[in-house]
Amino acid sequence: MLKKIKYHVYDILVETDDDELIDKVVAVLLLILILISSLVVILETVDSLNQQYGRIFHTVEMIAAVIFAIEYILRLWVATYTAEYSRPIWGRIKYAFSPLAIIDLLAIMTAILPLIFTMDLMFIRFLRVFRLFRLLKLNRYVESLNRLDDVVRAKKEELLVMLAMIAMLLLFSSSLMYLVEHEAQPDKFPDIPSAMWWGVATLTTVGYGDVFPITGLGKLLGGCVALLGVGMFALPAGLLASGFADEIRKAQLKKANCECPCPHCGGDISELVNGNIPAVVSKE
Amino acid sequence: MLKKIKYHVYDILVETDDDELIDKVVAVLLLILILISSLVVILETVDSLNQQYGRIFHTVEMIAAVIFAIEYILRLWVATYTAEYSRPIWGRIKYAFSPLAIIDLLAIMTAILPLIFTMDLMFIRFLRVFRLFRLLKLNRYVESLNRLDDVVRAKKEELLVMLAMIAMLLLFSSSLMYLVEHEAQPDKFPDIPSAMWWGVATLTTVGYGDVFPITGLGKLLGGCVALLGVGMFALPAGLLASGFADEIRKAQLKKANCECPCPHCGGDISELVNGNIPAVVSKE
Amino acid sequence: MLKKIKYHVYDILVETDDDELIDKVVAVLLLILILISSLVVILETVDSLNQQYGRIFHTVEMIAAVIFAIEYILRLWVATYTAEYSRPIWGRIKYAFSPLAIIDLLAIMTAILPLIFTMDLMFIRFLRVFRLFRLLKLNRYVESLNRLDDVVRAKKEELLVMLAMIAMLLLFSSSLMYLVEHEAQPDKFPDIPSAMWWGVATLTTVGYGDVFPITGLGKLLGGCVALLGVGMFALPAGLLASGFADEIRKAQLKKANCECPCPHCGGDISELVNGNIPAVVSKE
Amino acid sequence: MLKKIKYHVYDILVETDDDELIDKVVAVLLLILILISSLVVILETVDSLNQQYGRIFHTVEMIAAVIFAIEYILRLWVATYTAEYSRPIWGRIKYAFSPLAIIDLLAIMTAILPLIFTMDLMFIRFLRVFRLFRLLKLNRYVESLNRLDDVVRAKKEELLVMLAMIAMLLLFSSSLMYLVEHEAQPDKFPDIPSAMWWGVATLTTVGYGDVFPITGLGKLLGGCVALLGVGMFALPAGLLASGFADEIRKAQLKKANCECPCPHCGGDISELVNGNIPAVVSKE
Repeated sequence: MLKKIKYHVYDILVETDDDELIDKVVAVLLLILILISSLVVILETVDSLNQQYGRIFHTVEMIAAVIFAIEYILRLWVATYTAEYSRPIWGRIKYAFSPLAIIDLLAIMTAILPLIFTMDLMFIRFLRVFRLFRLLKLNRYVESLNRLDDVVRAKKEELLVMLAMIAMLLLFSSSLMYLVEHEAQPDKFPDIPSAMWWGVATLTTVGYGDVFPITGLGKLLGGCVALLGVGMFALPAGLLASGFADEIRKAQLKKANCECPCPHCGGDISELVNGNIPAVVSKE
Repeated sequence: MLKKIKYHVYDILVETDDDELIDKVVAVLLLILILISSLVVILETVDSLNQQYGRIFHTVEMIAAVIFAIEYILRLWVATYTAEYSRPIWGRIKYAFSPLAIIDLLAIMTAILPLIFTMDLMFIRFLRVFRLFRLLKLNRYVESLNRLDDVVRAKKEELLVMLAMIAMLLLFSSSLMYLVEHEAQPDKFPDIPSAMWWGVATLTTVGYGDVFPITGLGKLLGGCVALLGVGMFALPAGLLASGFADEIRKAQLKKANCECPCPHCGGDISELVNGNIPAVVSKE
Repeated sequence: MLKKIKYHVYDILVETDDDELIDKVVAVLLLILILISSLVVILETVDSLNQQYGRIFHTVEMIAAVIFAIEYILRLWVATYTAEYSRPIWGRIKYAFSPLAIIDLLAIMTAILPLIFTMDLMFIRFLRVFRLFRLLKLNRYVESLNRLDDVVRAKKEELLVMLAMIAMLLLFSSSLMYLVEHEAQPDKFPDIPSAMWWGVATLTTVGYGDVFPITGLGKLLGGCVALLGVGMFALPAGLLASGFADEIRKAQLKKANCECPCPHCGGDISELVNGNIPAVVSKE
Repeated sequence: MLKKIKYHVYDILVETDDDELIDKVVAVLLLILILISSLVVILETVDSLNQQYGRIFHTVEMIAAVIFAIEYILRLWVATYTAEYSRPIWGRIKYAFSPLAIIDLLAIMTAILPLIFTMDLMFIRFLRVFRLFRLLKLNRYVESLNRLDDVVRAKKEELLVMLAMIAMLLLFSSSLMYLVEHEAQPDKFPDIPSAMWWGVATLTTVGYGDVFPITGLGKLLGGCVALLGVGMFALPAGLLASGFADEIRKAQLKKANCECPCPHCGGDISELVNGNIPAVVSKE
């Protein structure tokens, strides 16, 4: 009997592939609760709203915390159905230390702890918004998310090299700008770390306007850095474009489940086809 | 007789595929009128111009409203020629509730209503500029617009996931920035929603410069967020690039009308070819 | 004799394909002169430099004008060698009205006219910098420039539709922002054209920071517009990426000069190959 | 004996392909030292930190300089193992003038010179951060870096043309803006070079907000320039995207080592295949 209930709980909370109505209703209700409790964290920081609706915010938080606590206990209970956490005790401990479970626990703790200790847990409270990550676990978008992840992963090394180049460009341009502008604006460019604040605002083209060169040489350097920055950021866009194109081709090839003997010798040429290289046939 | 006129009206206003001169003249005249009446709405808000040319603006508005009203009635009359709205009464009601017809009606109403009621319909008046959407209905550009629409639609899920990631990045970075800068700048970062104004200006690299971090930790965080933002927005550019490439390939394939039996087993491999995977030929 | 000289002049000034040393020397000298005379126009506007080196600047301008005048007359003289302008009188008039010839003439006029009339031709003077367009006519870069031109031309309609969408987004968002912020900031958003200045600075992510929303609703709208703007500008980048890819493929195909009878029926399938659609062979 | 040591030194410092533990340990230690000594250069400029930890910074600098000096001498000693620098004296002189060796020497000099001469070598000191370039020489990332380099090199001419176009757009728009805004804001637009500071901030969408047009015509021009700028920078992103796609295809083709006789005439069509043009098979 208990086993049957346990399986039902597992089926509803974790195994959401089978498109049952109850699964979706529970998933959507929990997501709405996550969104509401995240919204409450944000709105509580607005003084005028907190004074007026503070009590409501608190009640919502408590209700959400209780439901999240029940969800957490149930997930821990049925964790053993997942192959990875199948051992009764060790498996559950392992599950409790998985990133999503830790976030879930923290989200509950940040609501309960202030009741026991009368201290300000403001900064921990924000950890609750991390529960939003569950949004990305929605069945519908898992595939798209995985594809994005694959593309970024496939281009990992190039992206790292680009990041290193951007970091070095930032360091060089900021050091140079410090040398050029330090005397003219000792308050804006007192040291290199301060110059790097200018550097990052310029390279990313954010340009707040709180720090900018005023000398002729500084402006010349600043202009070159801005141009280089824009050019630099065209590289990852271009790289990712080819990454997405690659990914799509691979996915379609996989779907078609192509088996490819060589037309010349009958050997395996799937590698060639994978690379989108047109097959060539020799005339005897 | 009336039927003949009705068909002529339909031919001129709706069925614009047949490249007749009269169709084009009417279409262009209506478009110019839309542009002029939109321009009038914009220029009326300029006090100095309104004082000088207010009377002219008003006259132009009235003339445009009358012509648009005639156009609206004629379109309603001949709507039954379109398959979708073929039923005399129900079909016309259905047409009247189509988005473009509602926009057309609102555009007329915003000119007529102020004559009856002496109230300020300023905010409704701007709905008139929505008539500009008709510009996109121009025969010439319909195909290009459809292609853009197809590409965006094909990548809908990935774009949604990216939007969700950007929204979460915005929420996290703004919450963190609020924690870091709240004490140093209580007027600029009074609450998280205010911090999100900073967040969106930084992630999109707009950087107005009205709000920015001043503490060392805040600047470090701000710099990282700006870099992440630029990287994040390289993703949709890359994704759409591969989307456009895909779309072009599909369009060309469709044009060539390719029938593709498998070289190995004779089965249908059009799906494989759709994915631009080179066909492989086996030598018997 | 004169004919021989004329041909030599033509060979040196216009027909620069044959890689002769004299052609290159003349071309490079003329380009350096264009760069110098453009630099002089720029530096003359700097008061401190003009007071010190005004005389030198003037001399350089005069020398450049004389050389450009000689060049202009020579080009007019030998224009008849070009097929398009072969008729002695009409051909030369036609050449004189070609865009580059007009620019050349204006560049000379702006140096000579102030000597005759004592008026300030400041604004015409800048037309001289248009001579820089000759830089793009350099043999080496003509091919690359043509390729860029081809890509932009091939995607012309899509780019126009995107431009129309951006224009409409600009108009709608500016009108809305005017409605939202007009009362709170009557000096910054006095009318829609002023709001459009905010709109263009936000959509392009320039964000000078002279105008920005201050009400809550205005900031919400501004954030959405900034996000939409960034997304909107990812479209042309993606489109051009696929355009460049297409162009490269076509260029390579042209180079290979492929003749393609259909493997099934012997008919022409060059259209298919043009579209990069893999050929498929049916097994008998 | 000495020869054996020399080879060992060479093996550890230069020939890092063979995945030995000692090679990696030495490489990582040297890199950490480069990072630390770069960090010291940056932190020394912060007054408060320099007053407190100045002594420690100085000690770290000295230790790093000594180690770098030893490394430099060892690298010079074993340089003869590299084919390019094999001649005992001339080869080592040649090595000493290679860019990386010059940077290494400068990094050492900037630490030693201030001990001999009591002058401020602040500006030379920053050359030390150039040693960070060694980071890019890490085995792991060399391949990715080369690929980036290949892509940029393959599109060199197009990128140069784009740069020229951006430079001309900058010049024209700045000259025009100077003409339009000079009278209204003589302090912000005193001359064209100053207007170019506005131009570069607008075209790159940095938009610091220190200079912007205030007249109606100036704002119209500024808006157009901002839009053109964004469009202009979509070109390199698109170009590089197709460059990356090309590069990947070539790499895969090379891996597959394809030999391609023409199906029609038996001739070599590898060039055609290189261009990713599907092979076409003729049925006899």
